[in-house]
Formats: sequence, structure tokens, C-alpha cells
Amino acid sequence: MLVSLENDLALSSDRVAAVREFMRQHQLAGLMVPRSDEHLAEYAPPSASRLEWLTGFTGNVGVAFVLEHETAIFTSGLWIDQLKQETDGKLWERHLFTPTSAAQWLLERLVDGRLGYDPWLISEQALNAYIKHGLNCVALPANPIDRIWKERPGFPLHPALPYPIELAGETSISKRRRVAETLRDAGLSAAVLADPASIAWLLNIRGSDIPYLPVALGFALVHCDARVDLFMATDKLPQETRHWLGPEVDCKPREQLQQSLSLLSGKRVGVDTARHASWFSDTLRKAGATVVEAIDPCHLPKARKNDVEQKLARACHIDDGVALCRFLQWFETSPASETEMSCSAKLESLRQEMAAYKGPSFPAISSVGHHSASVLYCPDETSNRPICEDEIYLFDTGGQFLGGTTDSARAVWPGPSQPPLKLRDRYTRVLKGHIAVASLVFPAGICGHHIDSLSRVALWQVGLDFDQDTGHGVGSYLSVHEGPVRIGRNARPLPIEEGMILSIEPGCYEVGQFGVRLENLAVVVQAPHASQKRPFLRFDVLTLVPFDRSLIELEQLTAQERRWIDDYHEKIRQTLSPSLDPSEQEWLSRACRPLLDPPVER
Amino acid sequence: MLVSLENDLALSSDRVAAVREFMRQHQLAGLMVPRSDEHLAEYAPPSASRLEWLTGFTGNVGVAFVLEHETAIFTSGLWIDQLKQETDGKLWERHLFTPTSAAQWLLERLVDGRLGYDPWLISEQALNAYIKHGLNCVALPANPIDRIWKERPGFPLHPALPYPIELAGETSISKRRRVAETLRDAGLSAAVLADPASIAWLLNIRGSDIPYLPVALGFALVHCDARVDLFMATDKLPQETRHWLGPEVDCKPREQLQQSLSLLSGKRVGVDTARHASWFSDTLRKAGATVVEAIDPCHLPKARKNDVEQKLARACHIDDGVALCRFLQWFETSPASETEMSCSAKLESLRQEMAAYKGPSFPAISSVGHHSASVLYCPDETSNRPICEDEIYLFDTGGQFLGGTTDSARAVWPGPSQPPLKLRDRYTRVLKGHIAVASLVFPAGICGHHIDSLSRVALWQVGLDFDQDTGHGVGSYLSVHEGPVRIGRNARPLPIEEGMILSIEPGCYEVGQFGVRLENLAVVVQAPHASQKRPFLRFDVLTLVPFDRSLIELEQLTAQERRWIDDYHEKIRQTLSPSLDPSEQEWLSRACRPLLDPPVER
Repeated sequence: MLVSLENDLALSSDRVAAVREFMRQHQLAGLMVPRSDEHLAEYAPPSASRLEWLTGFTGNVGVAFVLEHETAIFTSGLWIDQLKQETDGKLWERHLFTPTSAAQWLLERLVDGRLGYDPWLISEQALNAYIKHGLNCVALPANPIDRIWKERPGFPLHPALPYPIELAGETSISKRRRVAETLRDAGLSAAVLADPASIAWLLNIRGSDIPYLPVALGFALVHCDARVDLFMATDKLPQETRHWLGPEVDCKPREQLQQSLSLLSGKRVGVDTARHASWFSDTLRKAGATVVEAIDPCHLPKARKNDVEQKLARACHIDDGVALCRFLQWFETSPASETEMSCSAKLESLRQEMAAYKGPSFPAISSVGHHSASVLYCPDETSNRPICEDEIYLFDTGGQFLGGTTDSARAVWPGPSQPPLKLRDRYTRVLKGHIAVASLVFPAGICGHHIDSLSRVALWQVGLDFDQDTGHGVGSYLSVHEGPVRIGRNARPLPIEEGMILSIEPGCYEVGQFGVRLENLAVVVQAPHASQKRPFLRFDVLTLVPFDRSLIELEQLTAQERRWIDDYHEKIRQTLSPSLDPSEQEWLSRACRPLLDPPVER
Repeated sequence: MLVSLENDLALSSDRVAAVREFMRQHQLAGLMVPRSDEHLAEYAPPSASRLEWLTGFTGNVGVAFVLEHETAIFTSGLWIDQLKQETDGKLWERHLFTPTSAAQWLLERLVDGRLGYDPWLISEQALNAYIKHGLNCVALPANPIDRIWKERPGFPLHPALPYPIELAGETSISKRRRVAETLRDAGLSAAVLADPASIAWLLNIRGSDIPYLPVALGFALVHCDARVDLFMATDKLPQETRHWLGPEVDCKPREQLQQSLSLLSGKRVGVDTARHASWFSDTLRKAGATVVEAIDPCHLPKARKNDVEQKLARACHIDDGVALCRFLQWFETSPASETEMSCSAKLESLRQEMAAYKGPSFPAISSVGHHSASVLYCPDETSNRPICEDEIYLFDTGGQFLGGTTDSARAVWPGPSQPPLKLRDRYTRVLKGHIAVASLVFPAGICGHHIDSLSRVALWQVGLDFDQDTGHGVGSYLSVHEGPVRIGRNARPLPIEEGMILSIEPGCYEVGQFGVRLENLAVVVQAPHASQKRPFLRFDVLTLVPFDRSLIELEQLTAQERRWIDDYHEKIRQTLSPSLDPSEQEWLSRACRPLLDPPVER
């Protein structure tokens, strides 16, 4: 490993030198190199891995700064350990990113010097945080890394393909008319669509340009008369897809985007200034359009799953549940030689047996013992640990199925010994938090920040907490992390609505010891109540995987909580059994028997 | 009653005619008459009862509009029933006030006509809601009602008196220095103080100008060098008080306020544009000062009670608890002839036996049966109902004690019959919600909107909810409704901090049937936890009144909830017994025995 690391370092310092040469030529005192791609998205194609190329850091969140004599890279708390492993501390200062930390670091070093940035890779809101600190930020006409990076991979050109009505549940024209109506209501002539998932949803198309998210990369303008301009490389739009899109979707090469924006002179145009590249606002304003801060008009309708999407979500969770239960049965009797990576591979192979399975919805987390305390830990050849009967095993995985997206996490005890009391206590507190949200009935109007605390009460009681949100939205064969609604302390003030699919995933992480996370997806449905004055909603759990009873401290549960688990386990048994063979059914019945039943010999 | 009502109506229509005459003379198409006084406060002196004088409405929230041919009065949902009882539907359209309803009503009738308003009686934020709708709002140089209202009471001139350090716990100069530091940190030269409670806290004075709130009315400017200009009628400041205030507090008559503001030309001045009269911003801007939107700089430090204030709060809650327990013992054996009003009077007389008691902290709520479903119901001669053994009795009362302010609510069942199952179910759900908040441990940083839902989960579960906040701040011998922190869905994003006193008061209201509200005050204290990474807090309950066990459905409580009640009752017993005589002690022991103990014959 040492040789390869030395090579990397040499490369990285050569690359920094090349960046500095560019800076000299262009009178820049500094250059900003964010991890973002042009869609400011979670997953990006290899052609956008500029930060990795420059620094070696592969995390999903980060920004590097190259100054004349200094360099630094910033990332969020979730990624800071990985940043330190992947980058060279002699070449890069490594810092935690906060709303002010990067700007402050720059301010102390740059004074009035020009800081170059690519307006395609940062939102206007993020940029303003630097400008507010008094930094002299200069938009560059082209990305400097792209000029230096010789072997930069090509832009992905996989085809965009029709997503049939049997899967989408609503025609594109119906969606476009609904979106157009919201634009008219807001007094907008058009809105920018820069989120490929929004375009996929609106136009009923899917693609394969990037890992984990089945979309074709492109941009769009949706107009208030329901017409759409789609900016996508011509090669990505086969005849079949053009026909599918119909005459009201005008397909144009990406190069025409700027020209099309300039036609909006004098018009009011919706831009999500926190989620769209600042290039859009700049270009629209230069063209004489009025930029109106507005949520992506597809985000709310996309989050409210229609009946077909909900039905398919249930179906793909049965497939996923079958694979996961087979995995757990296998795990229970697997030889001692299994590892984090072999377990991950086994689960992937079991999912692949399902006809509708298309691939993982995010990098599989598979962790033994103290690795489970790292929320985003994914094993590789160097970190891979064997399964150990005295250490917790946590797996957090998900799949893209035609029609739906899954995401679940369980912590299990390999046994046969009894888990330590502290672990059982923490597991049970996380489970109580999970049940508190999953069993909640709540009135329309409640937002994610109103219920996030419910998943924490049992942990708070003993001075514990977890740093992540309780839950996030999930797409329909789209992004596993989908906005605009989430369950978190700082969630946007948007109510949780019927049809939304959200994760519920409280956790407890003891660094160096263990982590527990219990994650299910649930769809929001109406809760019928005779006495109600207003509509009430509840969560209907989609995920079908039993909880590990050996980790549950029964005395810490209320009768209501025990009943919830028993009901949930019985639902799993009834739903999955028809798809399982007799030995699997036997395993499932044992895993799902009522909590107060006496233990059964394996 | 009819004669008096007829008289009132005649008066009201005469008064409207006089207002219209004023409007004609001043080319106004409409006049706004809000309920507010110059402090935009909850309780106001009789001289500010302009809305009542004009319309007959005595509620705390409301605004009337007189147009050439039409009149309307708006109030919030809490007061709408009272509005309809107190005003004449033939003379006044009566509407629910929403952020847009009043502006919309005006817009449909006024078109471009001038709407006169008194800039002393509306905040800039509230005014902007009208202006944004395109209404032509004209600030009047003097209040028109004051010119028409012949028998308008005089402005209260009760003296402002020193509030000694033994009660305040911190010298005024220390408070002023702390406040001045926050001004300097925010880059402000000065800040407006228009909340009489802020002035009372900052200068360690109290008064008796208005009911329920022991303050002397006045305004102040606090400067970033810790000097204060106090604008208060000279008659209200006896020599003793002037000496107490010291040389750094410059006492000026109210008439000098405008001149003092004009001295701030070129300076940055903090104004709470949602809570201060728009007159302040107008006057400062005209004087060439920069108005900076800022929270009243006394509000947060005032909310964080110091050790002395906390100790006194505990002490006055013992006094209050003794009075309340004596009341409950009396109530249990009181003759059938008692009424809502006689019960109220009895409780008041019991509080008056306490040496430190100064008077009620808000109008006493005392309600039988369906009256208890009206959250703000106060009995009068016409509404007064007798206590009935088969109807719930709800009382929500509080006192001003030297050193502290109390506020509590209980619902009790006169008996001896068993309460109906539905009532027991609702009572128990409210109690579960109360315990969920009262027993909570939570990390620093949590705000009121993060925990408001906890008090509702048990009600939501069956499709019920209540429209009020879960809780509000409470002052130290100051306002019973004190900002800036509250426990509510739309609470401001300000964390709940150590030393704050908050109410916890979930409820359940079945219109026409019954209401339940269970309210305690609690002080926020540190929760010690060995395992914590960050500070944790919890509520320490101040109120000492047992819950009525005949209304509790034991099977609906968890073991943890039963334990919380038993612990709370035991704390009441131990704390109050030394102050009670043997018969009272016997009653208290019975009321506070463990929930699972067998019933005891009365």
C-alpha cells in the first residue's frame, strides 16, 4: 500500500502545482474546488470527480482551496475521518466545514486577493456565505481543473429511456400541467430544473448515467404553459424516447441552455438558489429576467407518491424483504470465515435473484464491531473485518427496483452468547425511538422538525443523542435521499403529506465500541378517526425485516411498544411467507414469534 | 339585562357616528381601532380600552375598522365566542382574524381610500401586512378616539418602587452591563425598551399601573455604555426610586421620548419590529438613525432566572400549593350551593392568607361542565353555574407573589360517582402528554417547536388535538405570559435554557361537553449524565398540586408514567406537609398516596 500512497502523493502535489500555474496565469490568489457536480447532487459521474482527482478524497461532501502557498480541504462531520484517511496531512490542511469555517480560513489568508470559482459548482446561497465575509469571489468562464486533468473521463452518454405509465402511475402531460399550474399560481413564467430526478419524474424517463440513481443527466426549463425545454446531449435521446416525450418537450443540446435562458428576458423565473448552480441566476439576471427564489416545482408533487407508486413500493419491499430475510437466515448459520465484504456480496447476490432488482440504491454499509459506530462506513480490502460472534454486525443497504427504491438498516448479534447489557440497553432505546415515530398518528400540517425529537426521547433520558436526522424522503425508482421533506431538527417548514415515503432511522453510536441503527421506510397514509376535526396521518411501514430479539431488553418496552413489534413481525410473516420455501418460512416464524413467547432452540 | 344592552348599543352607534365625523373632517375612508395599548401588551390600563369603548368587546386581542358605511371587528379563534356575545351583530360584522382576513376585508371596500391608524398602537410588522395588500395606510398624529371619548380614564400614575436585591438576585447595574455588552456585540448604539416588564427587570423596579402585571408603565432607551434613559411621568418616580435608580438612569418625562430618539441620528438602534409600536421605527428613521430588527435585549436574560429568582419561585409555589391544596380539600366537602364564582372567590381568599401574595396573575378561570371547554372562560353573574357532582370542574388560576409568579390548572371530578369513561380517557391522555414533557431530558439547543408534539402524541393517537401552545414562559413577579421562549409548534428558534420557567399545559376540549387542562410550571435545570457529550437539561416542576386520581385510567399509563406521578405526589406531600395542619395533612396524604394503593374511604 505504501508505494501506491507515495505515488498518489506525488500526483496530488503535481496537480496542486498545475493549479497554481493556472492561478498565476489568471491573476487568482486562490481557487475553490468543490466536490459538487453541475447538478449539486449527491452522486455524480466520474467526469465530475475533480476534488478526488486533486486531493484523493472520495467523500460526497467537501471543498478544497488552493492558495499561492497554502492548501486546505473542508468536509462535514460525517466525512472527516475518511478525509483524514484519504488525504495527505502534509499537503492539505484538513478542517471541519461549518457555515463560517471555510470563509474564515480564506479571509485570514486571502485579504483582497481574487478567489476563483466555477459558477456551475456552487449555489448562489453557498456563494453568498463567502461574499458576505468580504471575500473577492470571481466566477471563472470555464473550469480550470478540466483544462489540467488530462485523463478526465468523458461525460456519461447513456440513453434516457421511457418509464412506462404502469410504473409512473401518471402521464407526463398530466404532471406537466400540474407543475405549470403551480408556476402560474406563483406568477412565474418558467422554472429551472437542475435536479435530474425532477426531470426523470416530470418526463417519465429514467437513465443510467450515475451510480445508485437511475437518471439521465440533463437540465430543463418548465414553462407555465406546460411546455418543457430539455437540454440533454443528442446522443442520449434515441428515437423511441423522443417519440415518448412528445411534441411539447423540445429537446435541445446542452449548449443551447444559455441561449434559451436569454429568451426569458423580462420574465419571472423560478430558481432554487440553495440547490441550483449560481450560473443559472447569473445568466438569467444578465439576460434581464427576474430571478424568483422558489422550490423546484417538481419536488413536492414527486414526493407525494401516487397510488401506483405506492403499490409498487409495497411490491418491491416484498422482494427486498425476501432477500433480506434470506440473508439473515444465512447469516445466522454462516461460517466464521465471513467478513463485512463477503456479507455485503451475499446480500447483493440475494437481491439480484429478484427480477425487478436493478442495483444498489447507495453504497452498502456492512460493519462489524467498532466499524458500526462510523455512520457511513463501507468496507474495503484494507478495512475488511471478519464477522465475530461477540461483536455487533450492522448493515444498512438498499436497492433500486423497477418501480421503487429501498433502504433499511438492522443491527444483529451473531451470538450464540448474550449481548452485553449496555448494547442491549442502547439497542432497545433506539428501537423505542423507532417505534415512537413509526407508531405516531399526527394531524395534517405537522413538519419533520415537529416529530424529530420523538425518536430521541429514550436516548436523551440517559444523556445520549445521535447527530443525524431521524429520516429522509425516498424516491420511486429514483433518489434514495429525496427532498423536500425530512424528519430532522432543522427540516424545512413543509408539512409531511399523504403518499410521502420517509425513512425512520434513529441510531446510537459509541465511538470505538459499536453503533446501532434501525431503519425502515414508511409511506404516509390517512389515519381514520371518527372524532377528528382535521385530517390525521400515520406511517405505514414498508420495510419487512424482523428486529433481532436477542438485542431487545423486554423490560424497557411498554406493553404498547411490545404490541407494535409483535404486530409488525406478524405482518412480515404473513406478507413474506408465500414467497419463501419451507425452511425459510420456519426461520421467519421463529424470528417473528411474539416477544413474550418462550425462547425456541435454533 | 335588556335595558342595559339597549343602552350600550345606542352608545356604540353614537360613538361610531362620532368616529365617522372625525373621518370626514380628516379625509379618511376608514379608521383602524386596535385593542392594543402603546406597549402592545396583553394587559392594559383602562385609558387604553378604546376598542371596548367603541364596540363593547373586552377581549385581549382584536381590531375594529370603521368605514363610511360599514364596520367590522376581528379577533382570534380564542376570543370569537366572547366577541359575538359582547358586540351587536347588527352594528358590527364579526370576523376571525387571520394574517390576511382583515386586509382582504378592507381591500374589497376601501380601494384607494385612506385608512387612518395610530402608529402607537400597531407594530411595523403588523402594519406591513396591510401595506403589502396595497392598502393606503395613513399614520395619524394623535389618536382620534382619545379626542372623542369624553370620560376617558386618566393615565395611571401609580409609583414605581424599588425591587430589592433580595428579590431580584442581581443588581440593576450588573444587568445593564450585561445588556450593554449584547448591544455592543450586535453593533448597536442603543435599543428601545417598550415592554414595561423589561424595564422593571432591568431597573429592579415594580409598580401597579395595570391589573395582573406589577409594573409601572413607561419606555426606556438602553445605551451600549449601560446608561438608560427612562421615560416615565415625573409623578410616578418618588425620591426613593430616583435614588434607587442611581445616576446612570436618566429619568425624563414621556414627552421627551421623541427628542431623545432624535439624538440617535446616524446610530444603529435595535427595535423589535414585531413587538414595538411602529412609531419607534418611524421616528428613528426620520431622525436619521438606522433601525436594526432585534429582539428586546432584556428578554433572554430576563427569561433565564438567577439562583435567587429560582429559590423564590420555589418558595412562592409552596405558598401557592398550600392555598391550592386547602382549596381542593374544601372543594371535596363543599356544599352543593357553591358556584364557579364562589369557588373562585374561595381560592382567592385562601391565597390572600399567604403573606407574600399580591393578587392574581391573570383573570381566574373557574368552569363547570361545558364551560370548561372554553379555554378562556371566566364566570360572571350571568354565566355563573353551580358545581355539579356529575360535571367536571376546571380551574386555571395564578398569583403574583413577592418574588414569583404562579399559574396552574387542574380538572377535578366532584363525585362521588365515577366519571364517564370518555372523560377518564381524555383526562388520562392529557396527563400522559403532560408527563411526556415534564419528564423529558433534552440536550442544549432544543427549542420549543421541537418538543411541543410530545404533549400531543396520546391525543393524536385517537384523532384529537388542542389548538393552544403546550407552554409559555413565566416571569419572576412579572408577566405570567413571558417571552421569548415558548413550547409551541411555531415557537421562535430560540433554545430552551437553564433557569427558564415554562408552563406545561396540554388540554383536550370537547365543545359543549367538557374541557381538561393540566398545567404545571417548571424551571429548566441541568440534567447530570456521566455519558453525555453535551449539556443536557430537564424540567423541575414547581407547581405543587395533586392530580385527581378518580379521573386517571391506570391501565392507560405506563409503569414509568405511574412512577412519575407517584414521585411527584410524594414530593408534594413532603414539601407541603410542614405548612399544613393535621386535617390538611391527612387529606394531602390521601390525595398523594401511590396510584396502585387500594382506595381509601373518605
